[in-house]
Amino acid sequence: MAKLEYIEYKNRLRRFQESLQALDLDGALVYQAADLYYLTGTAQSCHLFVPAAGEPLLLAYRDFERAREESAWQVRPLGSFKDIPGLLAEAGLTGLRRLGLELDVIPLSLFRRYEALLPGVQWADIGQVLRRQRMVKSPAELEALRWSAAKHAEVFRYITARIRPGMTELEIAAEFESYARRLGHQGAKRFRGQEQGMIPGLVAAGANSARTSCFNLPLAGLGLSPLYPMGASQHVWEEGEPLLIDYAGVYGDYTVDQTRIYLGKGVPEDLRQAQEVAMEIASRVAEEARPGVTAGDLYDLAVAMAARAGLQEHFMGYGRQVTYIGHGVGLDLNEWPVIARGDKTVLAAGMVFALEPKFVFPGMGSAGVEDTYVVTDRGAEKLTY
Amino acid sequence: MAKLEYIEYKNRLRRFQESLQALDLDGALVYQAADLYYLTGTAQSCHLFVPAAGEPLLLAYRDFERAREESAWQVRPLGSFKDIPGLLAEAGLTGLRRLGLELDVIPLSLFRRYEALLPGVQWADIGQVLRRQRMVKSPAELEALRWSAAKHAEVFRYITARIRPGMTELEIAAEFESYARRLGHQGAKRFRGQEQGMIPGLVAAGANSARTSCFNLPLAGLGLSPLYPMGASQHVWEEGEPLLIDYAGVYGDYTVDQTRIYLGKGVPEDLRQAQEVAMEIASRVAEEARPGVTAGDLYDLAVAMAARAGLQEHFMGYGRQVTYIGHGVGLDLNEWPVIARGDKTVLAAGMVFALEPKFVFPGMGSAGVEDTYVVTDRGAEKLTY
Repeated sequence: MAKLEYIEYKNRLRRFQESLQALDLDGALVYQAADLYYLTGTAQSCHLFVPAAGEPLLLAYRDFERAREESAWQVRPLGSFKDIPGLLAEAGLTGLRRLGLELDVIPLSLFRRYEALLPGVQWADIGQVLRRQRMVKSPAELEALRWSAAKHAEVFRYITARIRPGMTELEIAAEFESYARRLGHQGAKRFRGQEQGMIPGLVAAGANSARTSCFNLPLAGLGLSPLYPMGASQHVWEEGEPLLIDYAGVYGDYTVDQTRIYLGKGVPEDLRQAQEVAMEIASRVAEEARPGVTAGDLYDLAVAMAARAGLQEHFMGYGRQVTYIGHGVGLDLNEWPVIARGDKTVLAAGMVFALEPKFVFPGMGSAGVEDTYVVTDRGAEKLTY
Repeated sequence: MAKLEYIEYKNRLRRFQESLQALDLDGALVYQAADLYYLTGTAQSCHLFVPAAGEPLLLAYRDFERAREESAWQVRPLGSFKDIPGLLAEAGLTGLRRLGLELDVIPLSLFRRYEALLPGVQWADIGQVLRRQRMVKSPAELEALRWSAAKHAEVFRYITARIRPGMTELEIAAEFESYARRLGHQGAKRFRGQEQGMIPGLVAAGANSARTSCFNLPLAGLGLSPLYPMGASQHVWEEGEPLLIDYAGVYGDYTVDQTRIYLGKGVPEDLRQAQEVAMEIASRVAEEARPGVTAGDLYDLAVAMAARAGLQEHFMGYGRQVTYIGHGVGLDLNEWPVIARGDKTVLAAGMVFALEPKFVFPGMGSAGVEDTYVVTDRGAEKLTY
């Protein structure tokens, strides 16, 4: 991964500061790793203070040297949390009344420490502001996403040639992950918000590919234990069972998301038909995903197509269905836009999302597809393949 | 993994309720996955209300069927967050004044929703209570830990036979992880608190094995990108370089932690000597780790031994040293007790911790060892091997 140019960070900062000004904030404290990395180039343990105008103050708690090497901005060492007010004052950042914080993800314990440190300050959420800004990817980000997508395609090509009935889900997962790792997969994913014990992917065959779990997903697989209730199990993939492989591709800094469902000999006709409908939905939604369209409109289009095929009750889950058909990806796996029911987000060129129309048939399995797309003036262009 | 017996959950509940009573709490809401799993047998998305006495109320939001199958207690479906007060009232749980919550890890946003839902309630931390209770493992838990340790030993045996200079750190990591995964490794780890983008393990050769990062670890490796600043890189392991392999072993529900540092031909004598000191520290500390000793005493013993060998400034990091030599493991990777400077925790039989005396030589590499132990009346017994 080439380091981004300074101008990229200048642009990001400028846009963020415009938002702070529009919200009448004096500045913002940023701590979430992906937000911090987006604004500075480092994900080390830092507190970043962004004033509404002027240079940001990046305080590195650990590791200072690493943060200094990576950051686009000057870095100051932070010995202790309680030094923050003094360092702000030294930098001339005084009289702060209203500050932004990532209230969507901050733990209560950290919030209370900030409150005690800067008494009298009024706190406002800037999590939404940063998620909104990060929706639209720059050319450099798109290049990184294409690179990640190409690596992931290579892994899917590899696994497609290797799988055969008789392998366990776990064996298939191990093959996939091992090859991906050799290509530089991080072996982890970044997810904004709660740690959920999620692994980067799912392998699930037959009825397991219709199993739901605690996650806000249409399906999750069986898993190896109730404490890790998703993904591959020891189940043997039998001929006649659908096989679902759904992995986040995390190469370099950027994440793409992709699913392939293999429907071999003897797979129920219901699944084959649903698969065709899913492919049509993906292709139609991608065609319509142009600047100016809302995310909610795309969701409605997909649901209408599923209903027309008589498959509405299987779409995006069965019973408790999820109410989205896609989600943004980038530095995190769960970015904006979410292509969800009623979502008013207006698409713009450069937005990147995974589109995953899936049908779930309890006791039988699932059908569908997932690819990652970028919005262009001529509709969404597929990055994964 | 065999399902635990009902009596195990009854005992856990009873001990937890004794703590609630001692804190003069009317009950507690539990949401963190490992705490929930510990008390109920399910890690599905639930809200668990534990009254100070009597049956717990387990409300399953998603997935209800899965939670019902797994839980030791009766489960009620929860349609919406706002139904919680009504369901509490139905169960006769009214007049609640003081309730416990995992204030150490709860996100601010969830805390505010609870506050709005149950106005007038006074909230107290029960994160510490649960961490303290979970320190001491039952015979069934110890059996699960031994099983996990045996699997992990098999992976270390495998990798020890495969590694050779000329492999990249990433190749070694891929080999290790792939074999571990085949044996049932979850491919993830559970860490109480913030998602930190941590992968389950580190492979680092030469100077990389002395590199620090944002984590509260003596060393972290280089990694593949600044957004995932730990673990294996594309660096080739050369003869004469130390090679560190440090992985959490997560098989079934339980996590063990283990490190091996390979010092082959041509490795600097400083590292060899430090390795010997580390082995002596591990063995002495384990011998002394008996019921009644405090964690802080063990830490002091280790530091004194490092100092006597003239290696104090390399112990547990160089420059910004960490102030622990071990940490509890179990359902999470970062449990209690922490064998840390000044820690007053009194050891008891059945406590399980990873002990990891390590020496760091910037620019050169690291030496040391890590194993997982259980405290017994005759000192700590090694589980990993």
